[in-house]
Amino acid sequence: MRTEDVRRDIPLLRDHVYLDAASTTPTPLPVVRAMTEYFEEYNANTGRGAYSLVLRATRKLQEAREKVAGFINASSDEIVFTKNTSEAINIVAGGLRFRKGDSVVVPNIEHHSNFLPWLRLRERGVDVRVVKADEGGVVDPGRIEDAVDETTRLVTVTHISNALGTVQDVEEIGRIAHDVGALYLVDAAQSIGHMEVDVRAIGADFAAFPGHKGTLGPVGTGFLYCSTDVQGELEPLMLGGGTVLDVSEDGYVLEDFPAKFEAGTLNIAGFIGLGASIDYMNRIGIRRIQKHGMKMTEELHATVSSIDGIECYGDPQNIYGILSFNINNMDPHDVAKILDETAGICVRSGHHCAIPAMKHLALHETGGTVRASIHYYNTSEEIQLLGETLEEIAGMG
Amino acid sequence: MRTEDVRRDIPLLRDHVYLDAASTTPTPLPVVRAMTEYFEEYNANTGRGAYSLVLRATRKLQEAREKVAGFINASSDEIVFTKNTSEAINIVAGGLRFRKGDSVVVPNIEHHSNFLPWLRLRERGVDVRVVKADEGGVVDPGRIEDAVDETTRLVTVTHISNALGTVQDVEEIGRIAHDVGALYLVDAAQSIGHMEVDVRAIGADFAAFPGHKGTLGPVGTGFLYCSTDVQGELEPLMLGGGTVLDVSEDGYVLEDFPAKFEAGTLNIAGFIGLGASIDYMNRIGIRRIQKHGMKMTEELHATVSSIDGIECYGDPQNIYGILSFNINNMDPHDVAKILDETAGICVRSGHHCAIPAMKHLALHETGGTVRASIHYYNTSEEIQLLGETLEEIAGMG
Repeated sequence: MRTEDVRRDIPLLRDHVYLDAASTTPTPLPVVRAMTEYFEEYNANTGRGAYSLVLRATRKLQEAREKVAGFINASSDEIVFTKNTSEAINIVAGGLRFRKGDSVVVPNIEHHSNFLPWLRLRERGVDVRVVKADEGGVVDPGRIEDAVDETTRLVTVTHISNALGTVQDVEEIGRIAHDVGALYLVDAAQSIGHMEVDVRAIGADFAAFPGHKGTLGPVGTGFLYCSTDVQGELEPLMLGGGTVLDVSEDGYVLEDFPAKFEAGTLNIAGFIGLGASIDYMNRIGIRRIQKHGMKMTEELHATVSSIDGIECYGDPQNIYGILSFNINNMDPHDVAKILDETAGICVRSGHHCAIPAMKHLALHETGGTVRASIHYYNTSEEIQLLGETLEEIAGMG
Repeated sequence: MRTEDVRRDIPLLRDHVYLDAASTTPTPLPVVRAMTEYFEEYNANTGRGAYSLVLRATRKLQEAREKVAGFINASSDEIVFTKNTSEAINIVAGGLRFRKGDSVVVPNIEHHSNFLPWLRLRERGVDVRVVKADEGGVVDPGRIEDAVDETTRLVTVTHISNALGTVQDVEEIGRIAHDVGALYLVDAAQSIGHMEVDVRAIGADFAAFPGHKGTLGPVGTGFLYCSTDVQGELEPLMLGGGTVLDVSEDGYVLEDFPAKFEAGTLNIAGFIGLGASIDYMNRIGIRRIQKHGMKMTEELHATVSSIDGIECYGDPQNIYGILSFNINNMDPHDVAKILDETAGICVRSGHHCAIPAMKHLALHETGGTVRASIHYYNTSEEIQLLGETLEEIAGMG
């Protein structure tokens, strides 16, 4: 499938230049159809009951789990379906049995979802060590190495910074974590669906994923990869229907992984949609997506950084899919509004749920940045239009 | 809207006699259309960014919150959107600051989702007092009164038992809870959308709701009502994007209620669908739904209980919308399968995620019960077909 084929499947691209993939992506029609098929034909619960609609829904949900697992080189019994990336990370932060004196190592440029759950562990006596990224927003593995020691229970890093687009050396950081016997969690919110993500090659014990970003699946979906080797270390964050084998007034016996982490009725339609979106990804081909992404990122950076009065952030040798910038001294929200109103261009503005990253670059007081983020459906013409419109705005300033 | 109008909006009712509303309900086409409209026209994130698609999605999400709040006589800032009822209950069980020696009072016929999160509090030194229902599955308020004392921090009860259909005296139990200064949580999973649920009239501090059951909304949605008066007592279960006002390496300042409880990207499409389903409910009229529900429940009980070899459970004077039964000594799953295969009738079988309730009735060893549950889309003809098919099955035994 070529870019124009994908664009035909996303009606809102006719009227909008959508450059906010890092926030969420529009869902292609075949994915929406997989969900409406569920609602119209077999809208039943899963794993609960013996009638044919339930069996069909259960089978489709399991197929989705297998597709998702295959996409990251995991097996389906290593996948917990969650409502979003935040839930996946909170399951690990809340579910590991930390002891007083344990340490956790986390960079200072993380999205709040991969920062706050760790910071909160201080209430439980955990030593949370925040490692500074460099000025270009890259986390030097050497600094991680300096921060870890024998008390380190977990090291975490985001694969690609949502605020700056910088790609981190997740393999090397993983090796450092494992060298001191620590667990390793990768926040893959901005890499999944944009580049090949192989949890085994990375060496992740845990990895957190959205369904609604790079994979072009629907909002309301995410998942946690939890390696078979470390599943025993996690307690469920929530208990409820589907999480137990037996219950009495005196106690309960938990189900196996992943069922014990999936309390209550799941977003069945959403995960069936996510399964369809993985099929869709595979029809395009992740390598082709990545090749397109590299080209678009270069064009985006070249176009925007060459405009007088614009400052770009993030090491240009090391960004992918995302570009953060500011124009003169304009409020980022004003720039985003003008882009939308004058040219139908959708970009994110503000602190991108990454206030520490903004503080790191001394951008918090001035309202953060403007952020453009791309996917396979974006074209050179769209980047060009962004450049022309930004030039006009910069000229106004 | 009459029953036949609603049936026209639910395509799968053409081929199936759907009698499993207590598990999940089929979503009517206008609700599905509200979701596809989001996906096709304004598939953007909410509260994140300044462009028009974001503003439209944010406005629609807020409208949904107001509709949901209005439906239970709450205000929109008392509603936390969750992925299901289980999450809503876990937020309260995990988020209240319990102290060692506090007690919690919970009946023994609850769904696992309103049982396990409380049972788990024993690990934190909470005295979890399990109150036995009577043989008909009714929780005698007198027994709750005997169980509470000055240590009681919370009393909870399900409004309608999902396993037996018995309706509990939630107002009286609420008064008993408040008399000893305890908080009060009602699990309204089986009442919402089937009868008027007014959280203020009930006197609930917290109430947990599914979006995908009685209200005819989509899977992947639920919500927690948390009275303004007690919002300060709850800590968020999860932290992440959207939950904070400020963050540094030293700490964070949480957002107001409900934002601080809604980490990460929400199931925006789902909640917009839920809003549309509340509109749909209001078009039918909850009183009309309840009148129909009473009539169908009576017909269901009269039809099924009169068949030789069938035993029904739950106090017949006190059930609504749900009927649990067994035929001779047949495995409930076998009965459900035969109903499906011979007449396209969908009923739930097993322990209904309520093993303690099944043990209470000595039904756990024999595989639980067959459970038929109705909604406004069900007809007398369907009940009659169920009766005829059950008679044939009973005759086989």
